[in-house]
Amino acid sequence: MTTFTYYNPTKIYFGDQLSKLGKVVRGYGSRALLMYGGGSIKRTGVYDRIVASLKEAGVAVSEFRGVEPNPQYTTVNRATDVCKANDCDVVLAVGGGSVIDAAKVVTQARFYDGDCWDLVTQKVKAEQGLPLIAVPTMASAGSENDAWAVISNQDTNQKLDPWGESFQPKAVFIDPSITYTVGAYQTAVGAADILSHITDIRYFIKEHKIAFINEMMEAMARNVIKYAPVAISEPDNEEARENLSWASAMITGGIMDQGGTTDMILHLTEYGIAAFYEIPHGHGIAILMPRWMQYILNEEVAPVFYRFGVKCLEVEPGLDAMTGAQKAIDAVSDWLYHKLGLESHLAAFGVEEAKLPEMAVKALRGMDVLHGLTDLTVEDVEKIFRMCM
Amino acid sequence: MTTFTYYNPTKIYFGDQLSKLGKVVRGYGSRALLMYGGGSIKRTGVYDRIVASLKEAGVAVSEFRGVEPNPQYTTVNRATDVCKANDCDVVLAVGGGSVIDAAKVVTQARFYDGDCWDLVTQKVKAEQGLPLIAVPTMASAGSENDAWAVISNQDTNQKLDPWGESFQPKAVFIDPSITYTVGAYQTAVGAADILSHITDIRYFIKEHKIAFINEMMEAMARNVIKYAPVAISEPDNEEARENLSWASAMITGGIMDQGGTTDMILHLTEYGIAAFYEIPHGHGIAILMPRWMQYILNEEVAPVFYRFGVKCLEVEPGLDAMTGAQKAIDAVSDWLYHKLGLESHLAAFGVEEAKLPEMAVKALRGMDVLHGLTDLTVEDVEKIFRMCM
Repeated sequence: MTTFTYYNPTKIYFGDQLSKLGKVVRGYGSRALLMYGGGSIKRTGVYDRIVASLKEAGVAVSEFRGVEPNPQYTTVNRATDVCKANDCDVVLAVGGGSVIDAAKVVTQARFYDGDCWDLVTQKVKAEQGLPLIAVPTMASAGSENDAWAVISNQDTNQKLDPWGESFQPKAVFIDPSITYTVGAYQTAVGAADILSHITDIRYFIKEHKIAFINEMMEAMARNVIKYAPVAISEPDNEEARENLSWASAMITGGIMDQGGTTDMILHLTEYGIAAFYEIPHGHGIAILMPRWMQYILNEEVAPVFYRFGVKCLEVEPGLDAMTGAQKAIDAVSDWLYHKLGLESHLAAFGVEEAKLPEMAVKALRGMDVLHGLTDLTVEDVEKIFRMCM
Repeated sequence: MTTFTYYNPTKIYFGDQLSKLGKVVRGYGSRALLMYGGGSIKRTGVYDRIVASLKEAGVAVSEFRGVEPNPQYTTVNRATDVCKANDCDVVLAVGGGSVIDAAKVVTQARFYDGDCWDLVTQKVKAEQGLPLIAVPTMASAGSENDAWAVISNQDTNQKLDPWGESFQPKAVFIDPSITYTVGAYQTAVGAADILSHITDIRYFIKEHKIAFINEMMEAMARNVIKYAPVAISEPDNEEARENLSWASAMITGGIMDQGGTTDMILHLTEYGIAAFYEIPHGHGIAILMPRWMQYILNEEVAPVFYRFGVKCLEVEPGLDAMTGAQKAIDAVSDWLYHKLGLESHLAAFGVEEAKLPEMAVKALRGMDVLHGLTDLTVEDVEKIFRMCM
């Protein structure tokens, strides 16, 4: 019997509803910590719309600007200081997954006197958390609809992903028109990230129990694959941005987790890269994905890859599984490196050959193997890294 | 821009978790009103398992047995009396959609001194509601995962479907193995009902905005169509029952509502039958569906029906739309009346020719037309009823 528990109480305001943000935030608090990244929201006008809505609702705003990609725990500590100094009672994250992830940890760190890293490592268990509201500005991480945060520590070369009850946003405003200004590269990286949340975590897994959930993920993957190049060539294509924005939130929201056991072997592998190099998460995944598929390809996993190719990448049906799977892998490569235009080699990011063994060890996190369609040892991971150079 | 708000805070315990029920109920109250139907849960042992779990958790149980199909407001009134007399602080519905719907209204009626019909008609707006926990015993109405209740009034020949905040269950236990004992007929009627919640309310509509949501519904419909006959011929087929049980809850849960505008033209039409005759809701829908498709078939709607046929009913691609749509309609009939074995004529239920005009008027509920793929006048509805005789 398939057994799981599903619970997702996030309220999602999709589409043209950003003007309601202030009122919704006011329902949770009156002193908001507004967190964002490098300031692109100021250039696009999103910042002004948000602050106007907050002001109109009588919400006092304290700002923390400058959450970086792959956010550092030190950044979370600094944001927490601002939160404490202004006695903020609600956190509002406006940005990509990095901003939302950092904000998630602030919700707990607000009530903790020590270093937030203690909460990330879960050495200390948080007793409470501020309410979190999120406004994702790109379709990518899906952090807007889950309770996981990914936080890095440059001092220990660690990248951890704690879960927290208060990490689940109370409300999210997903306005796909905000993503019209997301450039081609970020759109591509975001789409690769969404696809990996389908394939790596929920679809390329050993056991599928509920058939229609599996097919729903194929529907989602098919449309991410279809619409990402459209969004790149026509940045203000409403249909493309809507599909990508809703897919970003839907795949992490929990509904798709019920198809079977959940692996995340590519994500764990990618953390081995990110621990040492500044590569956008989605891009690291994009470089790894077809190489990982190629490395583990055998008679056992071939039907999984081939089916994906037929359902999502227009690979012809009726081939033998190994031939079909190879075509699926080639189609994934073609989508990532040609249709999305992503660089395909780690070396282009300055990754050094000599570092690969250490990266592989980091990816394993002290475990004997990473579990997935095929389990990977540290030697396997190193070989995959080598294929990516 | 597609704009909608999604919020579904129901916690779903899927699979083999019924032993946790008492503890979960105890989280909401200590004096439960246990509502159920005709007593089949006693024969199947579900009743004993539930009462044992409640007792173990220290929950006092008051019972209301005898909620009928198409529950009457008078039944809700009687259940409310039991609820009040025992000062129940949580309502537990164990049964099909009828039991859950009746229980939904009790959550509000508990705090109202008058007749519950005032709440159903929303003449009186409920200020509060008891928490509701549901254990669906069949895959059908999806009432376990939404905030709508359908209540009938035999005195006024009305069947209304109010929405209420407290109608959304706090928690649901969906154990597909409970449905192993559901007979062939109820399984068939339930599957027809699920399919109608996909097609009538969310898929056969004028405008689809988010492509992958549409394709997700096709995935769901395809598997309901596939697994319902399996569940009929092998009642304890785990895979079949899991797909049907999860589809029942998933289609009503809100995720699929975002594909476009929401019609429910067949449901409204069926209410015209149910206002006068005792026909299970899913069966009424099953009799109507292909006749309605046939009646409105034209060049405009043909592509919608044909696509459904290709994606969900193995109709061949590449035909002209009208030919393909006709094949889709025939395939729907074949599924309902042969594969599921459902009676296809209203006359078999004692529906009288002379009553059809009055039924049609009732279906319109005072509106000029029912809105859908093609709007229907009262004359149209009467003609469709005539096709069903």
